[in-house]
Amino acid sequence: MTYSPPLADLAFVLHDVMRIDAADIPGYGDLDRDTTAAILSEAGKLATEVLAPLNATGDAEGCRLEGDRVHTPAGFRDAYAALREGGWLALDCPEEYGGQGMPYLMNCATGEIFVAANMAFNMYQGLTHGAVSALEMHGDDALKALYLPPMVEGRWSGTMNLTEPHCGTDLGLIRTRAGPADDGSYRITGQKIWISAGEHDLTENIVHLVLARLPDAPEGTRGISLFLVPKFLPDEAGAPGARNAVTCIGLEDKMGIHANATCVMQYDGAQGWLVGEAHKGMRAMFTMMNEARLGVGLQGLAVAGAAHAHAVAFARDRLQGRAPGGPANPDGPADPILVHPDVRRMLMDQRAFVEGGRAFVLWGASLIDRAHRGGDARAEGLISLLTPVIKAFLTDRGFAMAVDAQQVPGGAGFTRAAGFEQFVRDARIAMIYEGTNGIQALDLVGRKLGADGGKPVMALIETVKALIAEHAGEKGDAALREGFLDPLKAASKDMQAGVMFMAERGMAKPTDALAGAHDLLHLMGHVCLGLMWARMAVTAQAMLAEGRGDAAFLRAKLVTGRHYMARHLPATALHLTRIRAGGETVMALPEEAF
Amino acid sequence: MTYSPPLADLAFVLHDVMRIDAADIPGYGDLDRDTTAAILSEAGKLATEVLAPLNATGDAEGCRLEGDRVHTPAGFRDAYAALREGGWLALDCPEEYGGQGMPYLMNCATGEIFVAANMAFNMYQGLTHGAVSALEMHGDDALKALYLPPMVEGRWSGTMNLTEPHCGTDLGLIRTRAGPADDGSYRITGQKIWISAGEHDLTENIVHLVLARLPDAPEGTRGISLFLVPKFLPDEAGAPGARNAVTCIGLEDKMGIHANATCVMQYDGAQGWLVGEAHKGMRAMFTMMNEARLGVGLQGLAVAGAAHAHAVAFARDRLQGRAPGGPANPDGPADPILVHPDVRRMLMDQRAFVEGGRAFVLWGASLIDRAHRGGDARAEGLISLLTPVIKAFLTDRGFAMAVDAQQVPGGAGFTRAAGFEQFVRDARIAMIYEGTNGIQALDLVGRKLGADGGKPVMALIETVKALIAEHAGEKGDAALREGFLDPLKAASKDMQAGVMFMAERGMAKPTDALAGAHDLLHLMGHVCLGLMWARMAVTAQAMLAEGRGDAAFLRAKLVTGRHYMARHLPATALHLTRIRAGGETVMALPEEAF
Repeated sequence: MTYSPPLADLAFVLHDVMRIDAADIPGYGDLDRDTTAAILSEAGKLATEVLAPLNATGDAEGCRLEGDRVHTPAGFRDAYAALREGGWLALDCPEEYGGQGMPYLMNCATGEIFVAANMAFNMYQGLTHGAVSALEMHGDDALKALYLPPMVEGRWSGTMNLTEPHCGTDLGLIRTRAGPADDGSYRITGQKIWISAGEHDLTENIVHLVLARLPDAPEGTRGISLFLVPKFLPDEAGAPGARNAVTCIGLEDKMGIHANATCVMQYDGAQGWLVGEAHKGMRAMFTMMNEARLGVGLQGLAVAGAAHAHAVAFARDRLQGRAPGGPANPDGPADPILVHPDVRRMLMDQRAFVEGGRAFVLWGASLIDRAHRGGDARAEGLISLLTPVIKAFLTDRGFAMAVDAQQVPGGAGFTRAAGFEQFVRDARIAMIYEGTNGIQALDLVGRKLGADGGKPVMALIETVKALIAEHAGEKGDAALREGFLDPLKAASKDMQAGVMFMAERGMAKPTDALAGAHDLLHLMGHVCLGLMWARMAVTAQAMLAEGRGDAAFLRAKLVTGRHYMARHLPATALHLTRIRAGGETVMALPEEAF
Repeated sequence: MTYSPPLADLAFVLHDVMRIDAADIPGYGDLDRDTTAAILSEAGKLATEVLAPLNATGDAEGCRLEGDRVHTPAGFRDAYAALREGGWLALDCPEEYGGQGMPYLMNCATGEIFVAANMAFNMYQGLTHGAVSALEMHGDDALKALYLPPMVEGRWSGTMNLTEPHCGTDLGLIRTRAGPADDGSYRITGQKIWISAGEHDLTENIVHLVLARLPDAPEGTRGISLFLVPKFLPDEAGAPGARNAVTCIGLEDKMGIHANATCVMQYDGAQGWLVGEAHKGMRAMFTMMNEARLGVGLQGLAVAGAAHAHAVAFARDRLQGRAPGGPANPDGPADPILVHPDVRRMLMDQRAFVEGGRAFVLWGASLIDRAHRGGDARAEGLISLLTPVIKAFLTDRGFAMAVDAQQVPGGAGFTRAAGFEQFVRDARIAMIYEGTNGIQALDLVGRKLGADGGKPVMALIETVKALIAEHAGEKGDAALREGFLDPLKAASKDMQAGVMFMAERGMAKPTDALAGAHDLLHLMGHVCLGLMWARMAVTAQAMLAEGRGDAAFLRAKLVTGRHYMARHLPATALHLTRIRAGGETVMALPEEAF
């Protein structure tokens, strides 16, 4: 494993670009440079020493179902204990339930490091985190008092149970039933599939959050309620007691994330408790979506980062061919392949994506903090708009970059031993779960663009304009303008044209808008990464001018940024062309022609 | 398995578009519509009944090394026997050695069908085909007489041994030695890796073609010779006799094509015979490259086609959500997902690529026939130029389309049982072997563009221009012009600008050219597919006007073509932008900055 945590880059983004300790977000004032450095380097130590060594072995061994018990791969129990004991599971959980109460931002910054080291492993804690958030937001006081402390402590884990064999995306078709019992609890009956971490051996208890229908439920998504169903019913002391009637009856054999158990869960009259209001389960689910989806976008970025680091290490070591201008390693039989322009192109593409994506995710996390901790409605609107973009753009592009990293070593990339292909297989799921990337595009175009009269998308456009206006004036630096601000301006114009097309066609001819949803999402993703790069360039340029910081780091930052602006950002024009092509050829074939 | 052979489309391309039986290529006159239909439907029968059922089982079981023997998955021996008995292995092999002497074109047309049904299986015969070609072209009469008949008959198979642990792309570093023996043969010693079908149980004997160095060999690629090394030395009757000192000592554990044995081969003084001239082994290898690389491009296309068919079947069956305009399946709980614009977009993208790619490969195959059978130098130059494009563009895009097909079913796409993820894992290798796609781009820009004073690339540009000139005149159909010819013209201009950039920078600043090689290759790939679509549209339009052919098929063809021209061909502009960005940001970082 060649991964080492991007500590310098995280510090640059958090402190030089975002200046978090000066941000007016509750809790950010405590995050000075030393504090975040201490947290992130500790996370990096755990990731490289404990989690990374289990990445390949966990993939090879996978999970095993024996009877109704799932065994995680060797080493996972100890690693989970190390994470729990270090307090990492509860970094941003509420202090009243035993958490550390830090901003969500820090959960994301450490999360990238943990996911890069071992994506399948980190899902166990990620899902618990989501369940804690849901329960905290929607559960009543009794449920919270009983379940949150052991979940926050990591002694109990959490899951989300949505999908059934006949319905994944279309949750309105759910058949799992919840019947009221005399004691105010419910009896849950049905089958749920693709339940990540539905059963495992890492914790004393597993708390399932389950979508089901009450007897009087209206049809469709307006008749779905959310229930809490523990694997073991807590006894009077709050310890795991009687076994509940929920059982893992199968594990999926998957392309990747083998070390994470993907379970078929059978509920046979299992005892459960209503979370939030009856029939309002979808709303309860949706309120956690921003965090969960940002977490998946983070996976796309993190795995691409790990694959990139692996490719760089290979490209330094492998000797094949000679540099175009003559031997770079004249005493060796050949030069390291890092000298070849096409290898460099792939490495720079990956680097520009990973660094830009990192800034994007951290910006997104700060918007969540600003909205939740600061009650800022503009931030809430903006992150609501950007969530599908973060999720789908970063996972589509992250997968593509993992594939490119696999290409760097040539033949070795296809062998399991070299470790590249696992990144590709693992990264693939992030494009699918937590709502497929097609669903994200639909969410963006169908819901988010028009939300609040279009204010959020206007806020994004204004954010871009403000940055350009501030730095592109006559006093502005020519290199900054040509390398960053002008390309960003052009891309933003493409975005506005795309948004305009959607607004016009959305009403008149919905299929025109829907056929272009994927392209609009990618167009916006590029603009957001362009915005991140422009921000980073402004900062790097200023620091260089002032003689602050590591000059080599800052110069590399500017080169990498220009690479993105010159070679990737111009994709906005192609996406706009596709959007404007509308839905005619997409929809024209009769069904029987397929 | 949902694959059914694209018989109607193959007939359309071969007979309506290419009009092969009227082409002035030796052997094409025999290929009338009934003949090709009979051959292709028989191939389809074998593919769907025998090969396709072994695709998933072969992947799950993989190959097994016991001692020095490799066992292929259950069913492979019978399937191979069926292929051999049907004469499929020798379709285009020379009649004097027992082949059927058909054009290479027919090998490609049937090849797509076989590869789509079972890529890993079909490699066993594909490699034998390559070895037969090499031997036929470079072997002396005695070798040919002894080895070609059993190889053509399929009783013996063939391999290519190039790579060694320390060298893949840079064959100049090869260490395997060949020492002369008293009887005129040689003793080969060394290790070769990634030898597809290096050992297996499908044939009586295996004939290895091996690159090695003679004692007096100059350094680098000018000192490499080609040797024939049989697993069993033929006895006086030509039957497999004594075991030769070549042994499989390991199998690679790979991401995909599990059913094809990827072997580590150890040569311990194995007896071999020189093929062609001493030190001219690279040249002998290169003469087969066009066919071998076109064959890999075909794999990219074929697997994408199979994945697409699988996705269409899923999209018809799976009920989720409702069509944008109201229920399409009002009596069901939901509509088939085929109604959703984003699902359609993915399916149409795949379809447009597969049909365009199919025409491209068959055009390429006809150029090979025209060059080899007709001695046409222009065709030779053109296919030499297009070979890296066919190989890399069709495998890069084919992989992307397999990934898109996997996206259609959502969660099921990630499970092994649903069958989608195997297409992705199998398709991945085609971007790597037979020269990585980066090497293809280097070959295109470094060798092929400037070959013969640039005549081949001028021939391509002229081909595009001639088609436009013939059909875009005042008498031309407006729909044809707007939908096909105008976009093609714009794309061709981008290509010319890209080529011009390469010509200017190639000398002045090679890294500028090399950094854009990948993008020029993709730009040319899009122009070629655009050319194919324009040709197909001209034909379809004319047939519709004349009332010939299946009108529904022809109308679908025009829609699919317009989809390509409107949504994919415009990528040429983005590729040109990237080319023009040059190599500055690609090369600027010092090595230690990575």
